[in-house]
Amino acid sequence: MTALARLRDELGEAVDTTAESLEAARADRSGHRSPGRPLAVVHARSVDDVQRTLRIASATGTGVVVRGAGTGLAGGANAGPGEIVLSTALMNRLVEVRPDDLLAVVEPGILNADLNARLAEHGVWWAPDPASRDISTVGGNIATGAGGLLCAKYGVVRDAVLGVDLVLADGRMLRLGHRTVKGVTGLDLTSLVIGSEGRLGVVVGATLKLRRLVKGDACTITASFSAVGAAASAASSVTAAGIQPAIMELMDARSLRAVHDLLGLAAPPAGTVQLTVRTDGPAAREDAGRIAAVLTANGGDVTMTEDPVEGERLLSIRRSVHPALAALGTTLIEDVAVPRSAMPAMFEEIARIERVHGLQIPTVAHAGDGNLHPNFIFEGEEVPESIWAAADELFRAAIRLGGTLTGEHGVGELKSRWLAEELGDDQWELQRRITRVFDPQGILNRGKVFADA
Amino acid sequence: MTALARLRDELGEAVDTTAESLEAARADRSGHRSPGRPLAVVHARSVDDVQRTLRIASATGTGVVVRGAGTGLAGGANAGPGEIVLSTALMNRLVEVRPDDLLAVVEPGILNADLNARLAEHGVWWAPDPASRDISTVGGNIATGAGGLLCAKYGVVRDAVLGVDLVLADGRMLRLGHRTVKGVTGLDLTSLVIGSEGRLGVVVGATLKLRRLVKGDACTITASFSAVGAAASAASSVTAAGIQPAIMELMDARSLRAVHDLLGLAAPPAGTVQLTVRTDGPAAREDAGRIAAVLTANGGDVTMTEDPVEGERLLSIRRSVHPALAALGTTLIEDVAVPRSAMPAMFEEIARIERVHGLQIPTVAHAGDGNLHPNFIFEGEEVPESIWAAADELFRAAIRLGGTLTGEHGVGELKSRWLAEELGDDQWELQRRITRVFDPQGILNRGKVFADA
Repeated sequence: MTALARLRDELGEAVDTTAESLEAARADRSGHRSPGRPLAVVHARSVDDVQRTLRIASATGTGVVVRGAGTGLAGGANAGPGEIVLSTALMNRLVEVRPDDLLAVVEPGILNADLNARLAEHGVWWAPDPASRDISTVGGNIATGAGGLLCAKYGVVRDAVLGVDLVLADGRMLRLGHRTVKGVTGLDLTSLVIGSEGRLGVVVGATLKLRRLVKGDACTITASFSAVGAAASAASSVTAAGIQPAIMELMDARSLRAVHDLLGLAAPPAGTVQLTVRTDGPAAREDAGRIAAVLTANGGDVTMTEDPVEGERLLSIRRSVHPALAALGTTLIEDVAVPRSAMPAMFEEIARIERVHGLQIPTVAHAGDGNLHPNFIFEGEEVPESIWAAADELFRAAIRLGGTLTGEHGVGELKSRWLAEELGDDQWELQRRITRVFDPQGILNRGKVFADA
Repeated sequence: MTALARLRDELGEAVDTTAESLEAARADRSGHRSPGRPLAVVHARSVDDVQRTLRIASATGTGVVVRGAGTGLAGGANAGPGEIVLSTALMNRLVEVRPDDLLAVVEPGILNADLNARLAEHGVWWAPDPASRDISTVGGNIATGAGGLLCAKYGVVRDAVLGVDLVLADGRMLRLGHRTVKGVTGLDLTSLVIGSEGRLGVVVGATLKLRRLVKGDACTITASFSAVGAAASAASSVTAAGIQPAIMELMDARSLRAVHDLLGLAAPPAGTVQLTVRTDGPAAREDAGRIAAVLTANGGDVTMTEDPVEGERLLSIRRSVHPALAALGTTLIEDVAVPRSAMPAMFEEIARIERVHGLQIPTVAHAGDGNLHPNFIFEGEEVPESIWAAADELFRAAIRLGGTLTGEHGVGELKSRWLAEELGDDQWELQRRITRVFDPQGILNRGKVFADA
């Protein structure tokens, strides 16, 4: 029996081969698309469904691509010809909330924002805050090791997961990690799974580390600058002054202009760059005052509000960057990160690459943690080689400055050719061999992360 | 040429075979000792020394035990016959401090307290705070995934390391991790190395994630209770009330009495159990007031001080527990952790085990994170089997309550026989195979963590 026949035999209506579903599984939100339609989409509703699917895949040597909401930005969940798509989107239960132990147990398909809406009733929250939180799943957040806007103060996914239930390629399930905040029994496989982009196994459950909701009113600051270097320096100065904002976002002139166009706001003065900063917690107002002083001293034109509605309006300008750029063409969203002090230098590199390649690279940055999203905009579905050439220079510049080619989106398909350059050949090979311990046949997310493996 | 001859040939005076050094390398602070003296101690002064030693060990198939200050509590650095001890204690430089990027680069032999004394000049600190911080190395902290008193608020070692330089068994060096706070290129081998207890490679450098020094005055609270269950419930209530103390330590009646004896203080009323709580940061006073109210409502007799000298005096009582117990005999310090809400139940289990086995088990707990240190006291050097039988019940009780057999000390030699019970056989075997990817011959810390491997 073929893999597809066996899937239908064992999983019945969970197996979906409609053209629409197969077509949708070819692409994520990276603007990249696989060469053709996969074999089938399995809509798993239980751990047992996942295990059955993987046993069939193992027995038949069929490739499997695990998929949540498909909101990735690196092609990590794109499925191609001959592959089974294993969707965990329907496994979306909130299994347990323990405010007293500050933990929750979830299935992987739950949306980040839905989870937090439900946790709020208990006075707690899960801190990872990717910009996609309304549409991305916790399982996908774990698979990519997602970040977001709040990381500098509240950490990334890696800091917020206590344990993971993982189904291996052969169908066995492992319970990794702990329900305790401390625990050092053996190797930390939970951390190894976080950010492993589907290469080690299928996350079918997670024990999340929660925080209490932050008390007090937040303050929101915007500061306008006449040059991106000045804004980046000002942001670095805030960190260097020892103040920790909850959010500190930088929009360069091209991004800011695009958002104003999209939202129908008056165009900002030419060349205006904007920082949007939020403080929270018991010292929110005092911190905001100190940040405003640092930004003013660095040449910023500062406004500040404690009004939550106005604060949300100011932040919504930042959150509109991706739709605003998408309105201009197909976007390739890059994701380099550098040490915070190197942000001004990274912006200089971006300006140089723009000049050399004759491109515009609108850039936003999580300025509190040195994570920049330079955006390339082009026509059509395929990233042109001329843009990859510019991206290549971008990655090398970030690595040269002590940084990395991906801060939070992952390697996926789109950046796998640069991975060995950052890791070194020895580490690349060691990592590839570790994946083989988990998945000896190499059926899980083939060709992702490790290009030729 | 023998391994020893080759070491002498290549490393000259770094090779130490004095009886005193060999004898010292047989034991850590666990009260456990290897069956005999190792071959030699190599006092490495550079990465090159480490690489040469490992190449010789690999070529000759000689076992290697890496050692820092030897303050471990699980026998993880105990070296036996035929083994090379590779000491990184002399590699103790603070290589770089970047307050603006909140990072420091260190060699592994630097003492935790020395590091923090030097970082304080820059207004920053490294949060991991094991009780042994005055005498334990950062490399050892990383190898064990150490915790300490401040973890509930400020995290464990795992939360405070950005990257690690690792020399493999064959002498190759890998640079793992990032200088950025975000970074998701490939598998997170930095996290895998943290807590790997010397099985994957030798940590020769680390990039640490720093915090700003906490501003404002700390408040210190002590609360006396007439029963350990009441004190544990009170501590759980503090966490459940959503207040986050920096420190919350519980001393049971036997521990408290032993400390009072050691320090020559008046004996506390019979059966008195004590909580010591510290708050810090901008809301220190407000938090302390709320905690005092919770403790009082739970039957505690509360005193509070903002005087730093008196605060330190009160905390020094907690810090004197280990010397106080050591004065009573040889101690086996256990290290179970349970979800915070299960602390009262765990104390009931300890009382039950005391009754059943006719033992006294003085216990202290990091009550803010559910990590308990039950202490067994005995005569002589070897842990009696009767005590292991009681410890066995203790571990099983912790696992049954959703906990783990080691919160922060590690598995080492002493707990390896229980590891598979917690991990399950499948995960145990997978972890063992991962160590073989790093160290195919299995020369590093043989027999530690994974008992028969």
